Parts: sequence; C-alpha cells; structure tokens
Amino acid sequence: MSSNVVSIEDHKSTKAEASAIEEMQSLTKRDMALVNDTITKRMDSPVVMIPELAGHLIASGGKRLRPMLTLASAQLVGYQGDKHIGLATAVEFIHTATLLHDDVVDGSKLRRGKKPANLIWGNQATVLVGDFLFSRAFELMVESDSLRVLGILSNTSAVITEGEVLQLTVASDLSTTEDTYLQVITAKTAVLFAAACEVSGVISDGSKEVTDALHAYGKYLGIAFQLIDDAMDYSAHRSTMGKDVGDDFREGKITLPIILAYRRGSDDERLFWKRTINKLKQRDGDLDQAISLLAKHNTLEDTVERARHYGAMSKDALAIFPDCPAKKSMMDIVDFCITRTF
Amino acid sequence: MSSNVVSIEDHKSTKAEASAIEEMQSLTKRDMALVNDTITKRMDSPVVMIPELAGHLIASGGKRLRPMLTLASAQLVGYQGDKHIGLATAVEFIHTATLLHDDVVDGSKLRRGKKPANLIWGNQATVLVGDFLFSRAFELMVESDSLRVLGILSNTSAVITEGEVLQLTVASDLSTTEDTYLQVITAKTAVLFAAACEVSGVISDGSKEVTDALHAYGKYLGIAFQLIDDAMDYSAHRSTMGKDVGDDFREGKITLPIILAYRRGSDDERLFWKRTINKLKQRDGDLDQAISLLAKHNTLEDTVERARHYGAMSKDALAIFPDCPAKKSMMDIVDFCITRTF
Repeated sequence: MSSNVVSIEDHKSTKAEASAIEEMQSLTKRDMALVNDTITKRMDSPVVMIPELAGHLIASGGKRLRPMLTLASAQLVGYQGDKHIGLATAVEFIHTATLLHDDVVDGSKLRRGKKPANLIWGNQATVLVGDFLFSRAFELMVESDSLRVLGILSNTSAVITEGEVLQLTVASDLSTTEDTYLQVITAKTAVLFAAACEVSGVISDGSKEVTDALHAYGKYLGIAFQLIDDAMDYSAHRSTMGKDVGDDFREGKITLPIILAYRRGSDDERLFWKRTINKLKQRDGDLDQAISLLAKHNTLEDTVERARHYGAMSKDALAIFPDCPAKKSMMDIVDFCITRTF
Repeated sequence: MSSNVVSIEDHKSTKAEASAIEEMQSLTKRDMALVNDTITKRMDSPVVMIPELAGHLIASGGKRLRPMLTLASAQLVGYQGDKHIGLATAVEFIHTATLLHDDVVDGSKLRRGKKPANLIWGNQATVLVGDFLFSRAFELMVESDSLRVLGILSNTSAVITEGEVLQLTVASDLSTTEDTYLQVITAKTAVLFAAACEVSGVISDGSKEVTDALHAYGKYLGIAFQLIDDAMDYSAHRSTMGKDVGDDFREGKITLPIILAYRRGSDDERLFWKRTINKLKQRDGDLDQAISLLAKHNTLEDTVERARHYGAMSKDALAIFPDCPAKKSMMDIVDFCITRTF
C-alpha cells in the first residue's frame, strides 16, 4: 500500500453505521435464505463448468446488497407473496453476469479478493457463463408473471450495457465532464439499484407514487454507492477489501476524483494526468503522486460530498412511507453506503 | 484453397433448390422489410459505438434465415396480427449477440466475409454490444405481451449458452461421441431455429399440436443446418462464402466429420488427429491430409447423409398443415439447407 494514501477519515464509519448492513441482513434473513437456495438451484446445469465458474464468483459472496434491497423493499410495501424471491435472484444474476463480462473487459483485477474468472477458465467460458446467468435471470423474471416487471428489468439490462459502452467510449478521455460521468454511473450502476427496489412495488400492485419512490430511492442510492466506490479506489481502506488501491488509476479509468483534479490542476499537473491516464505511461511513484494531487485539490472529500447529496435525495424518496423496521433499515443502508470503509 | 479439397458434388444444389431461399424471401418480403426497419430502430442508441459495432455485423446481412422462419411460420398458421415482426427481430438479435460473443471466443475468423468486430473494436466493446442486443431482444419479446413466448425464448437463450459451454468443454477431445456432438449442435443451433418457428404458433393461439409441429420442424432443420455447416467447413464451396476452408480444423473443433474419421481411422491416422486436433500442433499440408482422410472414410458424405435424415424429419413435422405457399416454401428451405453450396 502506498505510504501517502489518503484515508477518508472524516467519513469513517461509526460502529452504528457499519452495523446497518447487519441490520438489513437480519431484517431479510429468512427471505435471503430462500434467495440463496434459488441462486444455487438456478445456476446449476448438467454442463459442470457452468456451476463451477458461476459459483466461483457467487460463492465468494459479496454483500448481496442488490437482492437485499429487493427483499427490504418488499417488506416496506407489505408484499405478501413469494415473487420477490425469484426477482431478487434475477437481480443478483444480472449483477453477476455484468461482473463476469467486466472480467473479460478488464482482465487483471482481484474480484472480491479472488482471481477473476477469465484468468482461471479463459475469456470464452467467462463470456458464455455470463450469458447463461443473464438468460436464467430472464427465466426467473418470466416466472414473476408480470410483463411490467419484465419491461423494467429488460430495459435496465439494455441501459446497463449502454452505460458500460459509454464508459468505454470516454475511457482515458480527461475532457470527460462530470455530467457525462454521472450519466455513466447512473446507467452502469444506479439503474439496477432502482429496478431492484421498484420491482417489489410492482409485484405488490403499488401505486405509481410507491413505485416511483422506490425507483428514486434505488437510483440515488446507486449513484451515491458508485461515487463512494470510485473515491475508495484511492483510499487506504480499500486494501482491507481484497481490492488494490489504484486499480482505476492503472486502467486510466475516468472517475470523479480524477475529473475534478484535472480541472482544478495546474498546467504541470495536467501534463501529469495526460501522461498517466490518457497515455497510460505510468512509472513507479505515479500512484503516490496521483493520490497527493487528489488530496491537494480535496477531490476525494468532494466526491464523498457529492455522494452525501445523492444519499440525502435517496432518503427523502422514502419519506412517503410510514415508519417501520424496513424503512429504518433502508435509510440506514444509505448512510452505510456513504460511510462504508469496512 | 487446398488442391484436394473435397466438394460434395453429389449434393450440389440444383437451380431449383438454390432458389428456395429466394422463394422464402419473396414470400416474406413485406414483413421482412418491417423486420429490417425494426432492426435498425432497435439497435440504435445515443452511444454511437453501439449502432456502429452492431451495424457492422447486421448490415453485412447474412441470409436472415431465422427471422424469415418466424415470418413464414406466421403465414403458415394464418396469423393476422403484427407481433411476429418484433419477435423475428428478437430472434435475429439473439443470433447476432451470439455471433458477437463467438467473435470474442474465436478471435480470428472471417465473419460473413468481414473482419470480426473484436479485431476492430476490441473484446470489451464486442461483449457489451452483444449484451446490448440481447437486452433489446428481451425488450422486444416483452412487447409481444405473451409470457409463454417469453418463457420459450428465455429458456432458448439459456440452452444456447449451455450448448456453447458444453462445446468448449469437449473442445479438442477426440473421444467425444456423436451423441454429445448432437447435444451440442441441438443446443447451440437447433433450439433457436425451433423457437423462431414455435413463437409464431404461440402468438396465433395455435393448439399444442401446431406449436409442437413448428418446434419440431425448426429443431430438425437446425440440426440439419449445423451438420451441413460442419461438413462445408471442409468443402471446396466454402471459400465462395467469404469463409475459409479449414477454420474448424485450425481451431481443433470437434465436428462430426472428424468424430467419424477418428473412429474409423487406423492407429496411425489417430496419431495424426491427436497431434493436429488434440494438441493443435499443425504444420503445412496437414489440412490437405485431414481432408484426404475425411474423403477416405467418406465422412463428409455421411455427415450430409445424417443431415438428410433430420431434414426428412423436419419436413414430416409439417405434414399436419394443409398445402399452401408457406408450407411449400418451408419444405423447400429444408432441401436448400441440406444442398446449399452457394
């Protein structure tokens, strides 16, 4: 780890905030056990390489935040059926398929602290198993018997890939605006959070007010989540998560901390960013230098500040719902996502 | 082209058979114009790389056999609505997405006579645009308002990817049985042909007898189609299609001509196959030698013979339908697929 890595100490999670994830886990425990069963069942195939490869990523866990949001949203609106189980599984499969296809894209990252699937099984199998999970997600969605749910989730998938292609298009382009960056993270991250919450409103026959509120809650939470993710890539706490500090830097990925530092920087500093991010000509010490520049211009703190803004909008979206354990948990998870440093 | 390439002269298309594709094109002309419009509209995106990349493959045409089968099937059952247009487009998008993901897998082939997308835009964009088309296919399917159609097509997608992974699993494995080979080509090719036909029966509220017949017709046609494709990879006529003779050989792909030649071969011949296909240690003259061995054991002709068998089953599946131009065209297209040498 770099010696002058900036830790976002001001925003370090308190014990209460860190336990927000446990609070939601406990709230959704029974349903999540059913989701985990469904995940295991539906990723199975007589073609053994499929559960092997999919299981590599899925078994490694992660927080399963997206399916948990589907389950918590179902509780919030008092849903009584069992369709939320399949839909939460579908949401997790779409997310996992995206991660697998990202592995092909990026090639070298640790993923949840593990070697990426493509380095073990090759690009071919990784792409195909992503496709398999994507198809299984659609099968699960069909079982919800709701064309509206299918419409939401199939559109979500299209928008996610548009966002990822847009991200590719602006890769290494330092003239990328904050607005374009917001478009990218909304599409590639926030719309799945939004859909994960909204579908629970749809299956419970919620009013437009209810489904819109769930959509907005998920969308703003997703934007805040990605902003923090992008800040954390340059933060000290990163290495405790099985990810390396500076992954984004090494890829020349254009994230808000860089966009702000480039705009606020001197001519000399811009030459540094052009060499390292645009031309990807990096040498020893460059990551340390990059982190110093982010600190000098306060861009990690400001990125977190932007995240707070979206977090506040996310929480306000829930205002129409009466107080209940699900609402409290969903409010607390917003703070968790912003302050998570693990 | 190799000097002793075997041409499948006995099965060379007559003028009448070659015109079967034109017959079906003319039968479905008006609907196909609508499908082409829908393709153009639905592959569009504000992210310009998407229509560019997707258009590279889609504009290059191909025969659009799969969507034509959806349209012809709709005529066969007297369907009066317009849902077959969107579904035919969805079928073509699923097919194109599969081709794009195959490009990432294989890397080096000419595709419809053009450079594969991944060599122009990179693996990353190619995977993502495949995902985009796949998502757009599901959006189109949702618009059919039929959960049964959605069930059929989402299951089809899952089976296709299972087939492709299975193919990967048995890659270069000379002990692969004809049975496993049939499983692979049924999954990766025939189920999409089957679904392309069956969905027209479903949207027209056809009886189980009708939808089963359309499914069987498409499935057996698809098996025959893939058998011929695999034979043609070693055939002289291949090079007129913008594909190279021997692509499968160079990849060590296990197809029926090889499976049969390996089983029927002498010990020396098996050593040859092990070196070239299993170990992929190939040198000049090996492709000629392979083609000689296929000729010696008559395996291309026998592969075509197997295709005839499935072609006959395909045509028999249509027997329950009264004679009409659509039925005639669908029967003729079976002969075309078997005798196509272009």
